[in-house]
Amino acid sequence: MTTMMREEILEQPAAIARTVAALRPRTDDVRRLAVGRRQVLFAARGSSDNAATYGRYLTEIVAGRAAAALAPSVATAYRRRVDLGHALVVCLSQSGETAELVETLAWARTCGAATVAVTNVGDSALARGADLALVTAAGPERAIPATKTFTAQLVAMALLADALAPTPGAVRGIERVPDAVAELVRGRSGIERAVDVLLGRPRTLVTGRGLGYAVAAELALKLEETCLRPVPGLSYADLRHGPIAIVDDRVAAIVVAPRDGPVLAGLTGLVPELRSRGAAVVGIGLAAGVDAHVAGPDLPEILAPIGLVAAGQLVVEGLARGLGLDPDAPRGLRKVTQTDPEEAG
Amino acid sequence: MTTMMREEILEQPAAIARTVAALRPRTDDVRRLAVGRRQVLFAARGSSDNAATYGRYLTEIVAGRAAAALAPSVATAYRRRVDLGHALVVCLSQSGETAELVETLAWARTCGAATVAVTNVGDSALARGADLALVTAAGPERAIPATKTFTAQLVAMALLADALAPTPGAVRGIERVPDAVAELVRGRSGIERAVDVLLGRPRTLVTGRGLGYAVAAELALKLEETCLRPVPGLSYADLRHGPIAIVDDRVAAIVVAPRDGPVLAGLTGLVPELRSRGAAVVGIGLAAGVDAHVAGPDLPEILAPIGLVAAGQLVVEGLARGLGLDPDAPRGLRKVTQTDPEEAG
Repeated sequence: MTTMMREEILEQPAAIARTVAALRPRTDDVRRLAVGRRQVLFAARGSSDNAATYGRYLTEIVAGRAAAALAPSVATAYRRRVDLGHALVVCLSQSGETAELVETLAWARTCGAATVAVTNVGDSALARGADLALVTAAGPERAIPATKTFTAQLVAMALLADALAPTPGAVRGIERVPDAVAELVRGRSGIERAVDVLLGRPRTLVTGRGLGYAVAAELALKLEETCLRPVPGLSYADLRHGPIAIVDDRVAAIVVAPRDGPVLAGLTGLVPELRSRGAAVVGIGLAAGVDAHVAGPDLPEILAPIGLVAAGQLVVEGLARGLGLDPDAPRGLRKVTQTDPEEAG
Repeated sequence: MTTMMREEILEQPAAIARTVAALRPRTDDVRRLAVGRRQVLFAARGSSDNAATYGRYLTEIVAGRAAAALAPSVATAYRRRVDLGHALVVCLSQSGETAELVETLAWARTCGAATVAVTNVGDSALARGADLALVTAAGPERAIPATKTFTAQLVAMALLADALAPTPGAVRGIERVPDAVAELVRGRSGIERAVDVLLGRPRTLVTGRGLGYAVAAELALKLEETCLRPVPGLSYADLRHGPIAIVDDRVAAIVVAPRDGPVLAGLTGLVPELRSRGAAVVGIGLAAGVDAHVAGPDLPEILAPIGLVAAGQLVVEGLARGLGLDPDAPRGLRKVTQTDPEEAG
């Protein structure tokens, strides 16, 4: 049996390659727009917010420019004017039609920010409202859970960070990402074993750190949406600061790790700690001491999240089917999401 | 039976009054330090991070100054220099000894930020490292779950926002908070009924919005720590953007609402939506249509979180006891938290 979600996971190498080709020529425009903007602020919801998290970390780590998240309710509920004359505001929405984000972007402009829209739909309200639109080329997505539109957003974040760096070329190797992802999603190394481990425990959590935290948050959200259980998605620092109390033999923990970089040692050290509390551990990109090892991408840490999330999407899709659920149409969700009750119709 | 946690919840009116008296005289120092700092950035973990969330919203809504959260791993794992010459960085740690925060504050200084420590221990590494220390006066806390140190941090956030506003006095009525909290924690209105509703469902989630989002996140964390189950704590905008798929008749949802303000309508509208999916609903500060109503404080929205969280802490403490657990010493947690495995000993 196949699903639309699985088909769209497999389309990702092409979606990523198209998006690199579409957005690479826009980096000079981003650079010009960002002159004198000392703070980069991201606004989004759901999967797009997880892509924004990757963007935040990249912008600081790669470009050395301060980056953080905006709270949309300040714009849309409190309608408070905030001085944003020092800021570049980046709003992400796959559809470009989530009213809350369209409104937040308009608010940011009136507050003095330079604005960038990141969307998969060029002729959308979000794209029209921004100083600059970065339009990803994922193509139409039919399954409710975002997969290829999400990885296309990650590509947009990588190119944005490259554009914000003091010198171009800070993000190296993005041309290699399509092949690395293709190898992962074709190989499916460890996916079935990981699904079996997850099926064996009633609870799931996902953890990562730094650049990979965005992947942990995204996989947790996908698991909640498709598998209909609460799934915390945490930085391991936050996990160890309290929520680790919930870890016991009912839990399967997914640990997402790059092949290199400064967070690898901490993530590796977390595995025996989780297992000593009784958890089963699925490593995505991490093999040492785990119960199931899903292969990670052959990419450096900076770009690894794009591959790690693709591997994780296959686990989510397999788990949903294993639970007898339809990953393409999770209970009670729609493709274009509105976030305020009065807008939901 | 009483618990240390319950005793410390009851001590909060006094802890709040002491903290107002201690920090009110420091607002001029904050104001001077913040001159020319267009962005306020907060760094913290766990409960302190939830207090920081309240601080972020207050700083934007009350003071009109841009505010967001820092990612500590950029400082402590990636050790990347970021330009923070435009920023005031506020680090929160109850003990003042969480190494990750001490290091993040030192990093922020080298990046050009002005720095503020918010801690309950004046002679702590965090306080010594900052340009300015706001030392809360909660007194020693013995139960592992932070209660009075948390509300004291909320008071510090309110006075910080007042200091950052263009004109002093933007946060009105803080002198009334101790009495309003005293009335709530003595009255215990609706607590037992709420605990019964929560005991009747195996899953819990907590939701709020805007200024009250911090309370939702904090109560979710407290429930995870003391009741040993995964508890999402979400803005209702994030809840509706995906995770609402998990809401069914296994769920009791806690909705935290102020008595007034722009988010009240959306929170009220959420109740029938949650119930139509089968959830039982506990309203803290919200009565319409809920299965159990816990009284909220007689305070305006700006200050309501300080009372709302106190009411919620009583629910958490009652639920832990109802589940046969010891709220004072949750499984596997310690009072001074370190967040990296190599530091944990």
